[in-house]
Amino acid sequence: MDRLIEAINTTQNPSVVGLDPTEALVPAQVVASFADEVRESVESEEELQAAQLAVAYYEFNRTIIDAVAGIVPAVKPQIAMYEALGPAGVDVYAMTCEYARERGLYVLADVKRGDIGSTAAAYARMLTGVGEHDPWSIDAVTVNPYLGTDGITPFVDAATEADKDLFVLVRTSNPSSSELQMLDLADGKKVYEHVADLVEGWGAETIGKYGYSRVGAVVGATHSEEGKALRKRMPHTFFLVPGYGAQGGTAADVRGMFDADGSGAIVNSSRGIIGAWRKSGQYSEGMSADEALELVGESARAATIDMRDNLRAVL
Amino acid sequence: MDRLIEAINTTQNPSVVGLDPTEALVPAQVVASFADEVRESVESEEELQAAQLAVAYYEFNRTIIDAVAGIVPAVKPQIAMYEALGPAGVDVYAMTCEYARERGLYVLADVKRGDIGSTAAAYARMLTGVGEHDPWSIDAVTVNPYLGTDGITPFVDAATEADKDLFVLVRTSNPSSSELQMLDLADGKKVYEHVADLVEGWGAETIGKYGYSRVGAVVGATHSEEGKALRKRMPHTFFLVPGYGAQGGTAADVRGMFDADGSGAIVNSSRGIIGAWRKSGQYSEGMSADEALELVGESARAATIDMRDNLRAVL
Repeated sequence: MDRLIEAINTTQNPSVVGLDPTEALVPAQVVASFADEVRESVESEEELQAAQLAVAYYEFNRTIIDAVAGIVPAVKPQIAMYEALGPAGVDVYAMTCEYARERGLYVLADVKRGDIGSTAAAYARMLTGVGEHDPWSIDAVTVNPYLGTDGITPFVDAATEADKDLFVLVRTSNPSSSELQMLDLADGKKVYEHVADLVEGWGAETIGKYGYSRVGAVVGATHSEEGKALRKRMPHTFFLVPGYGAQGGTAADVRGMFDADGSGAIVNSSRGIIGAWRKSGQYSEGMSADEALELVGESARAATIDMRDNLRAVL
Repeated sequence: MDRLIEAINTTQNPSVVGLDPTEALVPAQVVASFADEVRESVESEEELQAAQLAVAYYEFNRTIIDAVAGIVPAVKPQIAMYEALGPAGVDVYAMTCEYARERGLYVLADVKRGDIGSTAAAYARMLTGVGEHDPWSIDAVTVNPYLGTDGITPFVDAATEADKDLFVLVRTSNPSSSELQMLDLADGKKVYEHVADLVEGWGAETIGKYGYSRVGAVVGATHSEEGKALRKRMPHTFFLVPGYGAQGGTAADVRGMFDADGSGAIVNSSRGIIGAWRKSGQYSEGMSADEALELVGESARAATIDMRDNLRAVL
């Protein structure tokens, strides 16, 4: 986790921008502007929409990345939005990761993978690549704990080999996360506390120079009290904190997820940053694609600075 | 689940072949045979290995699919093996699914996705496609329950819209699955039993003409007793049973996961089928790529028939 912590220190900003494009978050004229270019590359009329969205997502992402590079230490592209478009979307996912890395950003691949040992070893190659080839260009992945230790160990090994990290789901930000995670166990713990203890153990052999291991935890901004308790329970575990902004979490809510030195966590906002242009009051349908992208970038940059300053104010 | 059940009835075979290729499972001469073809399409020397494996996986998969079509009702490609190769591997994943469907097979995409509601909705588009375009060509996905109901509902909705299915992890086949799934809850249930009850509920509105809902459950062949108990606990839930063969599960172990009519479950074998050529005693390094593929197909076909007959014998 050392590289992420150093990037946070450099920018003095413990926040990460979620690159989760959807049809609604990319201005319509940007998507439309690729109609001709895409038509030449697809095999059938039906593929047009997905292909056009894929190219538009890449252009949109590059605009956001250019606007926030230097302000934030990291980006977190959510692969679901890209997989929704099929393999063409997955191509754009990898291109986005590569571009973000070229701009000096730490790339946290939000993929929430998880499987039995032999399969987890295949997923973990997202971190190590194939021979000298690194097709994904990422620095960390998110992982699901439901399968237990043998589904996690291959990721820890790969992260160690490649100087990368993973973040395991502990207490997710969504409303129904409590259905499983908050259940009371017979031994008095809750399920997510049991998972938290496992996560702290999974990282134990990989603690870096700042006291945090390569095995982070996902702890939702929407669970302020539990996050504070988890901070004490997991002293060597760095937190990825989603749920800030659009999902309702505030800077005050996440304060307790940081350690006494103001380190130990990075807070994600996706829609609040990449969709900021929609709340700018400056968008109109008559804008050109370039004008719309310029507004996207300016709005994202302003929202990123706001978020940074809000976090700094409570730390 | 009706389409899957009908395909099982037609073949009189409740088994599914896992298409999980790895370097070790594809004969070396098959991989080598694509060296020249691939060299022309890659941008750098480093990409060669991944690109060559991707093409070889596709040829390998087609051989397996041709060999087992008509004997089994379904295939289950595990996406991890393809993602390990980067976007080129993901292309081959989609091509494999499309080819299997063209050969009349039900395609169960083993992707184990799971995320918060808005993100799950994006993943669920793997079932519904983009407009008229269906880039993944699949009939079902596997899903992880750790996020709770709002991470599942979008998949149920998409499955209903597209006449497809999902299978939620309940009791996985791997050794350390017990760390979380077998924990005792304060109310006397175990975690996996609580998940089982949720799964039965998630499917309640989608029960088809054979009494099973669109929301299946993943129950490992390695947990014979629990599988038997789950069969009673989840009367409307169809089971996907991995862990047969290479992982240790036998036909006798899975008997209790079927209902009184011999329906209600489909058993997966991956390495036992696609790697059967390695145990045939007929392979030699001096074989041509075509000869090796022929052996792969013959061995897979024989192993598939063996598995079918073993299952029939206990049902």
